[in-house]
Amino acid sequence: MRGVVMYSPGDVRVEEREDPKIIEPTDAIIRLSATCICGSDLWPYRGAEAVDHLLMGHEYVGVVEEIGSAVKTMKPGDFGVGSFVISDNTCEICQAGFQSKCVHAEFVHGTIGTQAERARIPYADGTLVVTPDQPDTDLIPSLLAASDVLGTGWFAAVAAETGPGKTVAVVGDGAVGLMGVLAAKKLGAERIIATSRHPERQQLARFYGATDIVEERGDEGVLAIKELTNGLGAHSVIEAVGTQESMMQAINATRPGGHMGFVGVSHGVTIPGDELFFSEVHLLGGPAPVRRFLPDLIELIWNREIDPGKVFDLTLPLDQAADGYKAMDERRATKVLLTL
Amino acid sequence: MRGVVMYSPGDVRVEEREDPKIIEPTDAIIRLSATCICGSDLWPYRGAEAVDHLLMGHEYVGVVEEIGSAVKTMKPGDFGVGSFVISDNTCEICQAGFQSKCVHAEFVHGTIGTQAERARIPYADGTLVVTPDQPDTDLIPSLLAASDVLGTGWFAAVAAETGPGKTVAVVGDGAVGLMGVLAAKKLGAERIIATSRHPERQQLARFYGATDIVEERGDEGVLAIKELTNGLGAHSVIEAVGTQESMMQAINATRPGGHMGFVGVSHGVTIPGDELFFSEVHLLGGPAPVRRFLPDLIELIWNREIDPGKVFDLTLPLDQAADGYKAMDERRATKVLLTL
Repeated sequence: MRGVVMYSPGDVRVEEREDPKIIEPTDAIIRLSATCICGSDLWPYRGAEAVDHLLMGHEYVGVVEEIGSAVKTMKPGDFGVGSFVISDNTCEICQAGFQSKCVHAEFVHGTIGTQAERARIPYADGTLVVTPDQPDTDLIPSLLAASDVLGTGWFAAVAAETGPGKTVAVVGDGAVGLMGVLAAKKLGAERIIATSRHPERQQLARFYGATDIVEERGDEGVLAIKELTNGLGAHSVIEAVGTQESMMQAINATRPGGHMGFVGVSHGVTIPGDELFFSEVHLLGGPAPVRRFLPDLIELIWNREIDPGKVFDLTLPLDQAADGYKAMDERRATKVLLTL
Repeated sequence: MRGVVMYSPGDVRVEEREDPKIIEPTDAIIRLSATCICGSDLWPYRGAEAVDHLLMGHEYVGVVEEIGSAVKTMKPGDFGVGSFVISDNTCEICQAGFQSKCVHAEFVHGTIGTQAERARIPYADGTLVVTPDQPDTDLIPSLLAASDVLGTGWFAAVAAETGPGKTVAVVGDGAVGLMGVLAAKKLGAERIIATSRHPERQQLARFYGATDIVEERGDEGVLAIKELTNGLGAHSVIEAVGTQESMMQAINATRPGGHMGFVGVSHGVTIPGDELFFSEVHLLGGPAPVRRFLPDLIELIWNREIDPGKVFDLTLPLDQAADGYKAMDERRATKVLLTL
């Protein structure tokens, strides 16, 4: 089958890879209907993470082709959406809603690699969720978004305890940040401050529910958010970048006693203990336990209550994956969908 | 009046200080019934914080002598317990339960200094809570503990979401750590792991409710706590030291999705962003909003349901404050009560 391999930073190729096979009785094989490129794929692409012939891709929707003997919640022909982290969904950590830290957790990125025609999904019952029926074609992008970028933005919004009466600030205008705006809106936030300097992303943020836009970054961004919140800071802040600047902006823009949810994959960040201590904000972040939210997100998408698929602003065939990486790297595209 | 002044690290003197006066209509003047030395007073004593003729002391109970014209909840002669941070208890931050970050917050330590015969308490209605009646003498140490060390341990236990069915680990065997044990027990924790190498403190931890003792520190301490929790880590971890080692031990001993409450005043701590990201634990810490808990803590003490006063293992007259500092510095005393 064809699949994406990142040979080294900036060198992305589509080549023949071995077809996946059932190994464990809890496995399923899916045929991808669509896949996509994640903002986090840019870290190795830009050389910020080691990379050597890495199997790329961790977002996926598709048709179940084959199941292991122990798989119970799906059959061949079903359409499924999976999380970017494998989980058994039965261990104590999963049951507490933190499937991304399951005792059997495994990242799809790097070893499974779903920028490909097919994929083996371990712990299929604990990782994949099947849709009520075959989806209409126009729902595919939204279902694909649920696999990571929507699930991650949603987790950040939940971690930041967004809800009715709350003012929410979102640091980062990438796809996850935009999904954070969508989630905050759907969860009932009163006011949503998006941070972006990019006109089209500002427009998309407003489409998803942003009420205010802040263009400043870092300490100036903190001041701008405080000016909009009586000098106190936002009740809830979503961090969706992963840099030192964005992390400290998010902490400092949260009011004392407020909640900060961080989902930008942390790179080179160090948090000064005393600043965190005296900021007195609730912090929760990490790889999103997408599996916790998938059933609800699929239902919202199925009922056309949310439209996360709009975050894909470039669609390319899998064979042109390298162009997709380039477009995202140069910020010409927010998020690239790859068709099969 | 007499009061404690720290001239420089290690140089603590009791000397004549100016008598406090009502300045603002929201002030009250109290005559101290007892005061004490805090573990955090050791930071400047040991030279880890700048100090130059600092007015020491931030824990206090006493009799109201005089009130400003705007004070409504107390009258001269009432007995009151105050928080170590001044708060108006009416602003948005206070109303959300974070009085230690009140828009009018001011630390009692350094400027007011309650290791003294009298003290001016700004925003008396928002800072002091009066007891139902004049307390029995044997309740004074416990009421004094509520002012900081109990309130801080309690906050840490609440921040760590201790409760029924939870396994709680407490990093640090100082007075605050021991109060964290007491709070975890009272809040219904199923199992409480105290960390201590000090036989008497281990004994006191058991008195307050510890079910297990871990002597290891740092990474070995993490392993020991994981061994006691099926390899997962504790649901709730209380950090009550404030060093790099204790902070990372606390984060890493918390299971994914668990809660870590940190109240040790952070000194020289830097938290690696990626470790925090992948640990996926809830974090909340900072100066405890003691005022939130004071009414409940006073009631528990008044009804003799808790006995935090046992944490004082050395009592000295105010004039011998310097000996008290020395005893705590040398870990000969856990916490020193100063009589007046």
